[in-house]
Amino acid sequence: MTAERIKLERLKDKVMTVQEAVDFFENDMVVGSSGFTKAGDSKVVLEALAERAKNEDIKITLMTGASLGHDTDGKLAAAGALKKRMPFQVDRTLRNKINAGEVLFIDQHLSESAELLHNKNLPAVDIAVIEVAYIDRDGSLVLTTSVGNSATFAELAEKIIIEINTAIPMEVYGLHDIYKPENYPHRNVIPIVAPWNKIGRKTISVNPDKIVGIVFTDKKDSPADIAEPDAKTTAIAAHILNFFENEVQLGHLTDRLQPLQAGIGKVANAVLMGFKNSNFYDLTMFSEVLQDSTFDLIDAGKLSFASASSITVSEECYERVFNNLQRYRDKIVLRPQNISNTPGLIRRLGVIAINTAIEFDIYGNVNSTHLAGSKIMNGIGGSGDFARNAYLSIFVTQAASKNNTISHVLPMVSHVDHTEHDVDVLVTDIGLADLRGLAPRERAQKIIENCVHPDFRAELQSYFDRACDRGGHTPHLLEEAFSWHLRLAETGTMKKLT
Amino acid sequence: MTAERIKLERLKDKVMTVQEAVDFFENDMVVGSSGFTKAGDSKVVLEALAERAKNEDIKITLMTGASLGHDTDGKLAAAGALKKRMPFQVDRTLRNKINAGEVLFIDQHLSESAELLHNKNLPAVDIAVIEVAYIDRDGSLVLTTSVGNSATFAELAEKIIIEINTAIPMEVYGLHDIYKPENYPHRNVIPIVAPWNKIGRKTISVNPDKIVGIVFTDKKDSPADIAEPDAKTTAIAAHILNFFENEVQLGHLTDRLQPLQAGIGKVANAVLMGFKNSNFYDLTMFSEVLQDSTFDLIDAGKLSFASASSITVSEECYERVFNNLQRYRDKIVLRPQNISNTPGLIRRLGVIAINTAIEFDIYGNVNSTHLAGSKIMNGIGGSGDFARNAYLSIFVTQAASKNNTISHVLPMVSHVDHTEHDVDVLVTDIGLADLRGLAPRERAQKIIENCVHPDFRAELQSYFDRACDRGGHTPHLLEEAFSWHLRLAETGTMKKLT
Repeated sequence: MTAERIKLERLKDKVMTVQEAVDFFENDMVVGSSGFTKAGDSKVVLEALAERAKNEDIKITLMTGASLGHDTDGKLAAAGALKKRMPFQVDRTLRNKINAGEVLFIDQHLSESAELLHNKNLPAVDIAVIEVAYIDRDGSLVLTTSVGNSATFAELAEKIIIEINTAIPMEVYGLHDIYKPENYPHRNVIPIVAPWNKIGRKTISVNPDKIVGIVFTDKKDSPADIAEPDAKTTAIAAHILNFFENEVQLGHLTDRLQPLQAGIGKVANAVLMGFKNSNFYDLTMFSEVLQDSTFDLIDAGKLSFASASSITVSEECYERVFNNLQRYRDKIVLRPQNISNTPGLIRRLGVIAINTAIEFDIYGNVNSTHLAGSKIMNGIGGSGDFARNAYLSIFVTQAASKNNTISHVLPMVSHVDHTEHDVDVLVTDIGLADLRGLAPRERAQKIIENCVHPDFRAELQSYFDRACDRGGHTPHLLEEAFSWHLRLAETGTMKKLT
Repeated sequence: MTAERIKLERLKDKVMTVQEAVDFFENDMVVGSSGFTKAGDSKVVLEALAERAKNEDIKITLMTGASLGHDTDGKLAAAGALKKRMPFQVDRTLRNKINAGEVLFIDQHLSESAELLHNKNLPAVDIAVIEVAYIDRDGSLVLTTSVGNSATFAELAEKIIIEINTAIPMEVYGLHDIYKPENYPHRNVIPIVAPWNKIGRKTISVNPDKIVGIVFTDKKDSPADIAEPDAKTTAIAAHILNFFENEVQLGHLTDRLQPLQAGIGKVANAVLMGFKNSNFYDLTMFSEVLQDSTFDLIDAGKLSFASASSITVSEECYERVFNNLQRYRDKIVLRPQNISNTPGLIRRLGVIAINTAIEFDIYGNVNSTHLAGSKIMNGIGGSGDFARNAYLSIFVTQAASKNNTISHVLPMVSHVDHTEHDVDVLVTDIGLADLRGLAPRERAQKIIENCVHPDFRAELQSYFDRACDRGGHTPHLLEEAFSWHLRLAETGTMKKLT
């Protein structure tokens, strides 16, 4: 196994136990780990660090691609091992620690962490932990199910710890396209003009002298939670597909559409599934995550190519992909997240971006991250990278939830992640509001008519009307703007008790 | 004059009076006009349209590059000639009409209007009004002091009316670099890797058959209001220069810095003037407007090249530039605003962006456009294009104003144009907060300590402390978040009356 997976002779004596590897960590270090939306993350070293932190005062700053699987973030947080965390997380335990002020979190656009590191706008990385399928003859790294920020961490870290994951077939070689934009001040063009362009290397080049430890694992990625479409997500998907069909009829788009980006989750899944029985064909994706629906659409002959930074799928799909890599390898590519999510490429390719909101307001401002203005759920992820630069920026959410006590369309969002300037289309299960070419007062009326749950419509109309009476380009009643959030906190419902 | 300025024979019979030209307009038309921050705008046709609208029910949708000079927006608004206006304005009369709900305004990122038009996400343009220096032998247009969206309007409009401005010397030929990104779905790389790269044509190609009228003018652009640096702007400039010097010492930047973008106004002027007596050299700009300070820095031998979409300067500077074009022509270029402001180039070039805020909050969210959440001042302009994609995104404002009754640093901004994700450094006359690598609670403490006027510091600290007691990643007290704005509206001061 060692011979097969470590092809550079002089690295073979770096194999060690996880316990030995975890000794390299010291208090206050900055650690960069592979892992993007639960894919290709550290399976054993970070977990062992959490164990060590149970009995020792050791706190690190942890940077990753995006979220980690296997409750690793939760274990680290519970053990008090995290001082600071960026750029994304989805873990309940960690979230609670962040909201309690016990862990500092930086919620970053996913394209930007690597930029900030290369530009020295963040502290230097002490240790990189990188999951690989194997180490090639030149000492370069063949990655697994994600690329994330691994190329940046490997380049900039003082020391590198490798996790060789033998659960990943070595045939994964060639799935990755590793490209690094030049450092400032002399940066060139990133030469991608279509999702399928491959412009870089298949492996991450590293200085082998920086590799201080190699451990073996055979743990698979945490599987994605795939929720079947329900009535609401099916309704949202139908509104979006209908909108696309109309755009084609108007001659704005062809049946091929333009490269698609879809956030993670039920709605994105339902939308992509909706393409299966549609007239659209030869679709492509330029996204950040490949989910089950991606492979379903490839199998259905609808999707020709998908570019992203990770493969995050269910157990069933994981087996399907890795037992049939030949079927998929010319149809997918995994890129560093500063390439998959880079603003210039999203604009150049004319991406159609579909992302999920927690709530939006009558003027089209979107909150993707916070509850009641203060408490974070996950993070902005790549939604800002895509929404800001997309050809079409679509946000979706359910109109109401919790037995219709909560409206997700509000007078004013309690936290803004995407401003009205960057939002083209809003969709709920109730309907779709096409906001292109509309001024704020027009946007509000359309959103109220098309997207709001009927239980809340009159009340929202009343807010808007009374705000208009007072005047303004974006009429608001500041003393009442958060009254729905406050009522929910006080009474358990956003509805006025009559 | 006609022979000299209209070099294509068959267009000479299109010369007409302004009255005749204005007859082409009909009610409900979409009009695209040249003009970017008061430069290169329509001097006579739109004004004549305003006159016509005084006695006739004619309302248009007016798109421009950015703001117009000569009170044209005000005249059109006062005459009731505007149904809808985009993407930017700075006129008091128009602003009042917008805030009264009488004119619909779309506040757009300046890079995006042309995209939206080419993508058919906005209504088609009926008439383009373009100021030119002259019409070349092939019928192509030699522009004047701005490019703005003129190339897009000329391409897409059904009819074109030309204003030949004889106040502009014909030697302006060669100052413009007209490049159009390919339409989707097959767009290529925009091949700019340095501010001085010229990649396009010197003139705008048009179908001469679309030119329905040509009028002559000799009106100069409205001069820029140049305010001398005062104590506050000088303090802000000093903080920023000190920050740059420190970045150089840390090895993050060289004495050449990286291409600079500066918003319009007093502060940008003071900052740029500050470079005059500094150690920085061989500076470049990749910005949207060239102001007096640009030419002063060129004259001082500090600035090597400046790229933008317009020249907006004082009367004195205007004379200096156009009487000495040879001195400046290899040091400046004017581009379409979808090139000067395009996200991908701003990221590729690593622009340092300095823009003005109306207010910002303790977490670094910036309001550039609205008073008290409802009333618009000007618009977001290019600030979002630059801030979102810059190497460094700096926002400046005075700490307090109106005899210190108004704090410009607040618990929560009343309108968000730039989220905390896109803001690296905040500066007031009190001091500078470097927010890179900081989590929200760290950002708040640094902003309170460094940027707030002393009269408001304790109160802001109290808000933050009490919000932290309640918890959250971005702790807020929603019931109190706008209390400073509300107090100002009720009592005329944000200060608590004790």
